[in-house]
Amino acid sequence: MELEKFRINELLLVAIKSEIESKDVYTTLAERVKNSVLKERLLFLAGEEEKHRAYLESLYRQKFGDKELKLPEKSDVPLPSVNTSEERLLSEIIEDAMRIELAAKDFYESLKSRFEDSKIQAMLQILANMELGHYEILSRELENLKNFENYDQYWPMMHVGP
Amino acid sequence: MELEKFRINELLLVAIKSEIESKDVYTTLAERVKNSVLKERLLFLAGEEEKHRAYLESLYRQKFGDKELKLPEKSDVPLPSVNTSEERLLSEIIEDAMRIELAAKDFYESLKSRFEDSKIQAMLQILANMELGHYEILSRELENLKNFENYDQYWPMMHVGP
Repeated sequence: MELEKFRINELLLVAIKSEIESKDVYTTLAERVKNSVLKERLLFLAGEEEKHRAYLESLYRQKFGDKELKLPEKSDVPLPSVNTSEERLLSEIIEDAMRIELAAKDFYESLKSRFEDSKIQAMLQILANMELGHYEILSRELENLKNFENYDQYWPMMHVGP
Repeated sequence: MELEKFRINELLLVAIKSEIESKDVYTTLAERVKNSVLKERLLFLAGEEEKHRAYLESLYRQKFGDKELKLPEKSDVPLPSVNTSEERLLSEIIEDAMRIELAAKDFYESLKSRFEDSKIQAMLQILANMELGHYEILSRELENLKNFENYDQYWPMMHVGP
């Protein structure tokens, strides 16, 4: 991904915003689905995006001081967003989320070259790997949605725990 | 996987026992690791195995009545277990857990042919797909353990939430 023309502070702020948006996408979908396995998978993804945000914020503060973060309303940094409108099919939204995960993976791998600290580089590579992992989890859920009629109705009866 | 020589009730009881053991493996490892992302991934896996157990128990009761389950101490059903001894390397235990996940996937795909109800067949295929997904998640963590020195020390500083 071509990120040379952007400054590191803008890249980090857009990445933070994008992680917040991804978390919101998964939380919104989790509220909508009935299937308890799918619901918990979406909440799991939301939780990981939250961790990414926390890491990126700590990285931003470490680089640019402890001031308040001003997330950009608009930016040309190529991190797309997902339309979670209720009129859309769940499978369509998941396909969009998969594209976002791959874009995020490319983004973190490109961002890595903007840092010299090997620990930061390793963390950005781990973030990239995690986004690829998210892509794979979503891809498996998409497969289930396509292969099993009424997949969203599966498992809701599973009351787990005492 | 060759399961013809076993009765369905034995197969289900061994599968339930194996899901309980897998849950215990992931819970035990989660208690041991410092890396908060890895910890939550392990707890996520534990939670999914718990859902599998709950489904298999409901299937057992539906087939064989509502009596108490007697899980076999020993069985020839080829579902291996994992040694989580503290003397072992985390990477070794994860490699074993990956083998178990693949064995479970094969097991559920073979078990499917022992049922005629298409809803049960679909559920067993979904269980098989989930175990393959677990294998992939573990494989990514194993990669991280191998590629990033002190991977278990990453992220512990990430205090997420309010």
